[in-house]
Amino acid sequence: MDSNKKEFLKRGIDYPIIDGARTLPGKYYHSRDIYEEEVKKIFHKFWILACRDEEIPMVGDYKLIEVQDESIIIVKEKPNKITALFNVCSHRGTQLCNQPKGNFKTNSIQCPYHAWTYGLDGKLLRAPQMKEGNGFSKSRCALPQAHIRIWEGFVFISLAENPQPFEVQMEALMGKFVDWKMAELRIAHHIEYKLNCNWKLILQNYQECYHCPGVHPLLSKLTPVHSAQHDYSKGAVIGGFMDLSQKGGSMTMDGKAAAQPVYDVTGDDLQRVYYYSVYPNMLLTPHPDYVMFHQITPLGPGKIINDCYWLFHPDVIHDRGAQDRIKSAVDFWDLTNKQDWKVCEQMQIGTKSSRFTRGYYSGREEILHTLDKELLQALGHEDPE
Amino acid sequence: MDSNKKEFLKRGIDYPIIDGARTLPGKYYHSRDIYEEEVKKIFHKFWILACRDEEIPMVGDYKLIEVQDESIIIVKEKPNKITALFNVCSHRGTQLCNQPKGNFKTNSIQCPYHAWTYGLDGKLLRAPQMKEGNGFSKSRCALPQAHIRIWEGFVFISLAENPQPFEVQMEALMGKFVDWKMAELRIAHHIEYKLNCNWKLILQNYQECYHCPGVHPLLSKLTPVHSAQHDYSKGAVIGGFMDLSQKGGSMTMDGKAAAQPVYDVTGDDLQRVYYYSVYPNMLLTPHPDYVMFHQITPLGPGKIINDCYWLFHPDVIHDRGAQDRIKSAVDFWDLTNKQDWKVCEQMQIGTKSSRFTRGYYSGREEILHTLDKELLQALGHEDPE
Amino acid sequence: MDSNKKEFLKRGIDYPIIDGARTLPGKYYHSRDIYEEEVKKIFHKFWILACRDEEIPMVGDYKLIEVQDESIIIVKEKPNKITALFNVCSHRGTQLCNQPKGNFKTNSIQCPYHAWTYGLDGKLLRAPQMKEGNGFSKSRCALPQAHIRIWEGFVFISLAENPQPFEVQMEALMGKFVDWKMAELRIAHHIEYKLNCNWKLILQNYQECYHCPGVHPLLSKLTPVHSAQHDYSKGAVIGGFMDLSQKGGSMTMDGKAAAQPVYDVTGDDLQRVYYYSVYPNMLLTPHPDYVMFHQITPLGPGKIINDCYWLFHPDVIHDRGAQDRIKSAVDFWDLTNKQDWKVCEQMQIGTKSSRFTRGYYSGREEILHTLDKELLQALGHEDPE
Repeated sequence: MDSNKKEFLKRGIDYPIIDGARTLPGKYYHSRDIYEEEVKKIFHKFWILACRDEEIPMVGDYKLIEVQDESIIIVKEKPNKITALFNVCSHRGTQLCNQPKGNFKTNSIQCPYHAWTYGLDGKLLRAPQMKEGNGFSKSRCALPQAHIRIWEGFVFISLAENPQPFEVQMEALMGKFVDWKMAELRIAHHIEYKLNCNWKLILQNYQECYHCPGVHPLLSKLTPVHSAQHDYSKGAVIGGFMDLSQKGGSMTMDGKAAAQPVYDVTGDDLQRVYYYSVYPNMLLTPHPDYVMFHQITPLGPGKIINDCYWLFHPDVIHDRGAQDRIKSAVDFWDLTNKQDWKVCEQMQIGTKSSRFTRGYYSGREEILHTLDKELLQALGHEDPE
Repeated sequence: MDSNKKEFLKRGIDYPIIDGARTLPGKYYHSRDIYEEEVKKIFHKFWILACRDEEIPMVGDYKLIEVQDESIIIVKEKPNKITALFNVCSHRGTQLCNQPKGNFKTNSIQCPYHAWTYGLDGKLLRAPQMKEGNGFSKSRCALPQAHIRIWEGFVFISLAENPQPFEVQMEALMGKFVDWKMAELRIAHHIEYKLNCNWKLILQNYQECYHCPGVHPLLSKLTPVHSAQHDYSKGAVIGGFMDLSQKGGSMTMDGKAAAQPVYDVTGDDLQRVYYYSVYPNMLLTPHPDYVMFHQITPLGPGKIINDCYWLFHPDVIHDRGAQDRIKSAVDFWDLTNKQDWKVCEQMQIGTKSSRFTRGYYSGREEILHTLDKELLQALGHEDPE
Repeated sequence: MDSNKKEFLKRGIDYPIIDGARTLPGKYYHSRDIYEEEVKKIFHKFWILACRDEEIPMVGDYKLIEVQDESIIIVKEKPNKITALFNVCSHRGTQLCNQPKGNFKTNSIQCPYHAWTYGLDGKLLRAPQMKEGNGFSKSRCALPQAHIRIWEGFVFISLAENPQPFEVQMEALMGKFVDWKMAELRIAHHIEYKLNCNWKLILQNYQECYHCPGVHPLLSKLTPVHSAQHDYSKGAVIGGFMDLSQKGGSMTMDGKAAAQPVYDVTGDDLQRVYYYSVYPNMLLTPHPDYVMFHQITPLGPGKIINDCYWLFHPDVIHDRGAQDRIKSAVDFWDLTNKQDWKVCEQMQIGTKSSRFTRGYYSGREEILHTLDKELLQALGHEDPE
């Protein structure tokens, strides 16, 4: 059964080309001021992907998430509760914890400096030798929390004090991809890429296959470029799919499936690879037999970390005989990713030139125009001229 | 005899806790603008520790001191005179000398570029082919001097044109620690630490033992935390002492003395370790049997060099059999220093967070509140709210 | 025959010393703002040296030139035409080419991202799937060109939209050094130096021999310091010569010629070494038997690349027996260059000091005063006081 209800449009063929749509000016990839605005108005405000809930299975398990100057502890507070705490002691501001992953052995978080101790819910339990009064009270010293929501095993957080409701930002995700039962899938592999380009270039790269014939010969063989279709959503979730040319195939080095279709995937979905950007820091690619996703962490106007994960059915992960097929899916995307990073990094350099005057988008790049408009709206900027 | 005349107060126990005293806002550790203000209004204006006079014993010996964009040559001008010269040629601004230590062989300083030659007093002796007149005169081309004062073998300089009198800034040091005859002590060991934290975090760390139980188990055994007392001085010199728990002991790996008490140290001083910060760049720790001190060199808002020195009686330094005991004192402080650097660097990172709202100081951290007020006054800043 | 028509003046001896001429203030070597102004008003506006035409002999050969944020492709468009193209795709701003040298195999330049393809003249030949209309037309998407001029085998470019005529900026070069037939000479050797100093310090260093006795003992032996003479030109070209002390000698490790005089060099030119700065990025040093030149690439206020080239008669380059003599010329200048780089880097550091008040130029440094005035005029700055 096709789990996607929307109408799709052929990218750049059926869909009317937007009149005179042009790229962002180069400064949007290089200006430190614009970057700081993006951090404040997007990364510290929107719902962003933090991690998979499987990464912190036991009570006390935690993972740190860095969002520019903010460090967030994603911690398993109770068997059924994950909590997001700012990683900063209420006393003198010491970072509580500096190991990227771990377990708070005593189910409490102790500051390494003066031993102030917090519960996994962030409440200040002990502050040695601090007498209540004169303005100080333990109850007012809980660790600040970030908002948290889990969707299909993905942990999202928002650092905003009052974020937009998750269901509003992620409207187009609600009810989507249910057949994959992604909450049941598990991480089979992870690769961290350090890239010298602006975070937006990765989203742009992901949302058009105009570059595929030249950049990705293998991908273009497995999924014909002209099969690209998309549902032209507004908001943070936007994307579409491409058709697998091989019946029962998938995105692997040989084009054959890496595994059986996951859970309830059936019908058209058996012949499709979906590509959705979940604005601003997640790219989600469900295949019939596995799910690949990217998590983007901006480190500056021209610097990001891109973490790429492969999710498989747990039975496949535990099947010794299936490891070669997992590897084939990993190798395919590692090859494809590196092809993309090269052109993204070259676009980063080129757009510095004073002679780059905003170019015209092709009909196959209309989603990029939508992403640009999302950005300008989030920043409250006028349409540049 | 106890060389300290002042009344002491138990830290955070006898002494009234300041109402609602809170830490500095995080920007004081991260802002480039505030850092540049600190350089201008504190490091380029206050008296600061430069070196020990024993480091330049012979006429012509010199040591370079870096104070942000300024380089100062501390040179032995005459048998009884040390002079501080700006390390910049009056002709075209070339740095005269770039070796950190050495000896000006001919008792003159020659610019490597055009061979302008200065006396050890900074006077321009020779400027080849320069004809006096048209505005130029050799007598107006002497190297600028920094002010210089020596106290107990410590060389202090001020880069201000008209510094506050040394005796005013250092009032609380005058007549203090005379029994140690520190001018007679010699450097037994030196360790340079490169740290990723703001310079003020080192002073704060040094002026409270609230962190000792968790961070320094060995130190807390040798000097019980609750023994800390201090004389609540104003001005640049502030500190106190802790009691040695072992009779005749000291701060070493086994808690036993590293050497005989130095010179005239007697009475209560035999059972005390003193901790004085000499604002802004010196931390002075006299023990009964040796003296340890830190010199802080800021390199940026989040970057310093901390040079740690151990001074011993010259007889101990020359006694082959005493080297193990010196090592025990060095090892103790090297261990303790590294425990401190870890939490200081974590505080540096944590205070970047927008959610670090100024915390409340415990009663045991009142000197930090005094240090903060010194800083705000030196910068001419309002009390932050 | 002497190819130089002008009258020459003994540097700093015959020529009247300029009254009270003083150096630039230190900020001209350190301020990021002034550096960015220099890039805009000088490096992105003046004619600058790009390369030698022999470096791109075949149609399709190219070399990349970096001028701060701009990358320029110098390409052999036709057998008799060299063209300078901005290295940035008109579509989305991708850098077209990132290898420093090479050959465009198909005589076209293809963007690695979406395969837009340009001719060697910059015209957009193919833009796959782009439909003309809605503002887009291929004819308006040619790569922007930089202006280009060739003089004696040297390729000069200007990034200005409307540069000053080449003959005006380079007036003093026109007709100069014709006897060397420099267009016929070939690169025998190249050394790239990465230096931590401002670009102007290299020009200043090159235009006075006041530093030679102390810094360059060997050079001072081969060309007596007091032999320096210069023609006090205005504009971008300024310089003079020194006499070779050895008859028929040259600048080599042993002072003997490295080769026969090149082409038509005769008369006085057989005993002279010329030093001309071709503002802002070229230093040209014709010897009787070879030509040495520097190309300066600024990377920031305190960072440059200096590429040094040695040009010889092609017969010498192809003569196996002559390689030792070429090496002797290369070694001489490599030694001399490194002596210069050391003092330039020390001047860079020293001029940071707030106590560097503009020094007086000696009579032997008058060209530096002229260079300073050129700079201030180009920037539109008042004479500093």
